[in-house]
Amino acid sequence: MSSSKTMEAKNPRLNQLFDDLVGTLRAFIRKHHITHEEFRRTVAHLNEAGATGEIPLMMDVFLEATVDRVDSEGRGGTETCVEGPFYVPGAPAMKSPCVLPHRANEPGEVLIFSGLVRSTDGAALPGAVVDIWQADAQGAYSHFNIPEADAPYNLRARVGTDQDGRFEVRTWVPASYEIPKAGPTGKLLAAMGRHAWRPAHIHLRITHENSQTLTTQIFLAGDPWIDSDVVGAVKGSLVVGLEKHDNPADLRKLGLVRPYYTLSYDFVLPRRMAKAA
Amino acid sequence: MSSSKTMEAKNPRLNQLFDDLVGTLRAFIRKHHITHEEFRRTVAHLNEAGATGEIPLMMDVFLEATVDRVDSEGRGGTETCVEGPFYVPGAPAMKSPCVLPHRANEPGEVLIFSGLVRSTDGAALPGAVVDIWQADAQGAYSHFNIPEADAPYNLRARVGTDQDGRFEVRTWVPASYEIPKAGPTGKLLAAMGRHAWRPAHIHLRITHENSQTLTTQIFLAGDPWIDSDVVGAVKGSLVVGLEKHDNPADLRKLGLVRPYYTLSYDFVLPRRMAKAA
Repeated sequence: MSSSKTMEAKNPRLNQLFDDLVGTLRAFIRKHHITHEEFRRTVAHLNEAGATGEIPLMMDVFLEATVDRVDSEGRGGTETCVEGPFYVPGAPAMKSPCVLPHRANEPGEVLIFSGLVRSTDGAALPGAVVDIWQADAQGAYSHFNIPEADAPYNLRARVGTDQDGRFEVRTWVPASYEIPKAGPTGKLLAAMGRHAWRPAHIHLRITHENSQTLTTQIFLAGDPWIDSDVVGAVKGSLVVGLEKHDNPADLRKLGLVRPYYTLSYDFVLPRRMAKAA
Repeated sequence: MSSSKTMEAKNPRLNQLFDDLVGTLRAFIRKHHITHEEFRRTVAHLNEAGATGEIPLMMDVFLEATVDRVDSEGRGGTETCVEGPFYVPGAPAMKSPCVLPHRANEPGEVLIFSGLVRSTDGAALPGAVVDIWQADAQGAYSHFNIPEADAPYNLRARVGTDQDGRFEVRTWVPASYEIPKAGPTGKLLAAMGRHAWRPAHIHLRITHENSQTLTTQIFLAGDPWIDSDVVGAVKGSLVVGLEKHDNPADLRKLGLVRPYYTLSYDFVLPRRMAKAA
């Protein structure tokens, strides 16, 4: 047993977390007098989640928002938000201003999304990379609900900020959507009589060499699910109203025939923390 | 939201357990300041357990013993023990005395396992079914570590008790064994510097029409892992010593050339609880 103790000392954080997690779950079992039948049904449910690849979805839906809040305490700058399970690395690199990759018949309302990226010390950040991903006007994500082959990186791009730290992209207003309902996560919510909706939002991951990475979401004000996000991720400072534009002259300038919307937000990144000497 | 509330009322136990479990896990995340990186590694680990079918193993190894203790409180009769993940229904029905299904070259020492099955009120229980399963002398389970086709129901049977409530089977002394080490459950234990051993044991599920089913295990006294079972399932009342027999006359009577062992245990089943009127 002495060699086992030596090994244990190598990873004290893992041992501590594991023991307290198992102890916490055992206390939960005792507190609620969980029966063998209930335990078996829970195991079967988690096993189904595993077999259908829904473990990450289930964990993100029910727990990631808490991790985000805990892990960003005292960080400063724009508030963070959960990454969620729909990020895809390697989206096309584009220069601002640009139009996000889209289908020829991309449905919905046009949205001009612009912003400034700056540091907590006030300096604008030219050369920051704004990695954007979002659902379409029907609540579908490319590479997930829309097959990758049909629309590679649809409404996804990595946009560089200009010399003033600004970016502007033309995209489409995202819709609120339900998380997958056919699998075990959705069935669990249904069994509890709860909805599966997320309010409309745009995901961003903003990186800059001298700054801490900002992973966040911008939520659209007025969404019917803004106060009951199934993921529990909405933060007031990230809720933004859209401005509607229907002046014929404005529309003509952009080559549009229907009203469009604008949204502007300034993103503030903390300085990268100095490495310990 | 009123229809949602109506639905919620249909399954109050599920809603209560779910909310307290998620609340408990969120409190755990806050208490330990779980980082996003740690959360991602945990999700990846559980996802791997799901993809490799190890969710039931992981749940049984770390939590089932607690469920067993909680769910059997105040039950009476022989103490219960965890079922574990290696039970296979439909083993051959046999009359006592019998020899368990085995290979022509079944390795190890012969064990004569006998017992009485009775009720908590003292009455012997003829016609009880003693469903037995166990690892072989190398710690392998048929249908799991031994392919089903090579040895169907090896060391597994459903044995009926005789008119006196007794049974006797000839089998082979089971070995202690390590739970699967190649997958995520084993890798987690290794990362913590912990062993994966279970002490040698025989599984039983005993059913009788007028009695509550008894799921339990008999552990072999003197096993090196008896005090550090990875599953934490050992109960003192279930640890039994083997008696060694090497008298040449005894051996000749059984047609054996090497020493054999005997093990005897009386199993006591509580009366089936009366249904509420």
